[in-house]
Amino acid sequence: MSDTSNRAPKKTAPDSARRSERSRRAIYDAALALIGEIGYPRTTIEGIAARAGVGKQTIYRWWGSKAEVLMEAFLDINEQNARTAAEKYPVPVTTTGLPDTGDLETDLKLVLRATIDELKDPRFEAPARALAAEGVANHEFAEEFITRLLMPGLDLYTDRLRAAQEAGDIRAEVDPTVARDLFVSPLAQRWLQYTGPLDHAYADKLVEYALYGISARPRKQ
Amino acid sequence: MSDTSNRAPKKTAPDSARRSERSRRAIYDAALALIGEIGYPRTTIEGIAARAGVGKQTIYRWWGSKAEVLMEAFLDINEQNARTAAEKYPVPVTTTGLPDTGDLETDLKLVLRATIDELKDPRFEAPARALAAEGVANHEFAEEFITRLLMPGLDLYTDRLRAAQEAGDIRAEVDPTVARDLFVSPLAQRWLQYTGPLDHAYADKLVEYALYGISARPRKQ
Repeated sequence: MSDTSNRAPKKTAPDSARRSERSRRAIYDAALALIGEIGYPRTTIEGIAARAGVGKQTIYRWWGSKAEVLMEAFLDINEQNARTAAEKYPVPVTTTGLPDTGDLETDLKLVLRATIDELKDPRFEAPARALAAEGVANHEFAEEFITRLLMPGLDLYTDRLRAAQEAGDIRAEVDPTVARDLFVSPLAQRWLQYTGPLDHAYADKLVEYALYGISARPRKQ
Repeated sequence: MSDTSNRAPKKTAPDSARRSERSRRAIYDAALALIGEIGYPRTTIEGIAARAGVGKQTIYRWWGSKAEVLMEAFLDINEQNARTAAEKYPVPVTTTGLPDTGDLETDLKLVLRATIDELKDPRFEAPARALAAEGVANHEFAEEFITRLLMPGLDLYTDRLRAAQEAGDIRAEVDPTVARDLFVSPLAQRWLQYTGPLDHAYADKLVEYALYGISARPRKQ
């Protein structure tokens, strides 16, 4: 074991970690490309392995199913995007990740604009759309998709609104889990169902209307 | 031609119309049941014909494709639901179909509550979900789906908000096509992506928050 003089140099741990990291990335890229091209139902572990240039067993060693591979590929994109956004918009963030400069209107506009940029990112669009379509049609899959990918993103908005409520910026009787939907659901629907242009001007209007209301009349008591 | 005494009585036009109407309904029911059970991609004209107990040619005589059959089956459901809603909520309606009692808050709550009831109607849910999933994944199909089914419904809200704006109930600078999304998109997302409970209390809060805003502070000038 100790005499390796006439054999290839023994792989050191850092080499092995780098190789694993390369395989992991290749598998994520293959999974995202395939689901975008042929849809979730026709994407298989075998297909992902072939496209990534790894053995099927390499995938099964790390993940239990194609759903798990895809979820983690998306979580990985989310992490990368969060880092990009942090570089692009260098503002103070809450512990939960959304900016908190003390100016709720500005912070919400900034985050919604960044979210729109992300939804339109071509690396993201086709696979995310295939995943969302499967979530609409397949309730069991949707549960996994919602718990692991969708809700953690929505909860960031809820937490930011709750902080604003504690700071006295949001009325005390408002339910943050409903108020959150005034901003995020319109983005989701325009992206999912092409019901209108999805641009920064839209994000700004949503924030203004939701914060200050669209009514010209005072509220009934 | 005139002597029919020793043959079966000649079908009169009303009989033929009744028979056609029966076939049309059987085809709609079969199409909606199939897409709900096996999804849009696997639903075929042959399958619809077999389930409806009609010849394939009967379907091709009236419709050009399975997409057309399904669109018209949904338009037919929408018409039936509009009649049911009109019986259930006997209030004055605009020419475009939404109630206009002069009280915008009450009218919007009523329509959103009725929409939630409709989204949860078991006749509607499975086929509508299969159709929506196909629209998310398939852009060409989505265009037809949006133009014929989705936008006409959304436009009713826009028209009602525009009427409210003319009556001085909505601020003049508000864009009704964006304001509409504050109400309808949260319903759409909770239905499509199971992001929270979809009930009448939710509808009421959305209307209140959107009309009067969630901010505790006055708007920045």
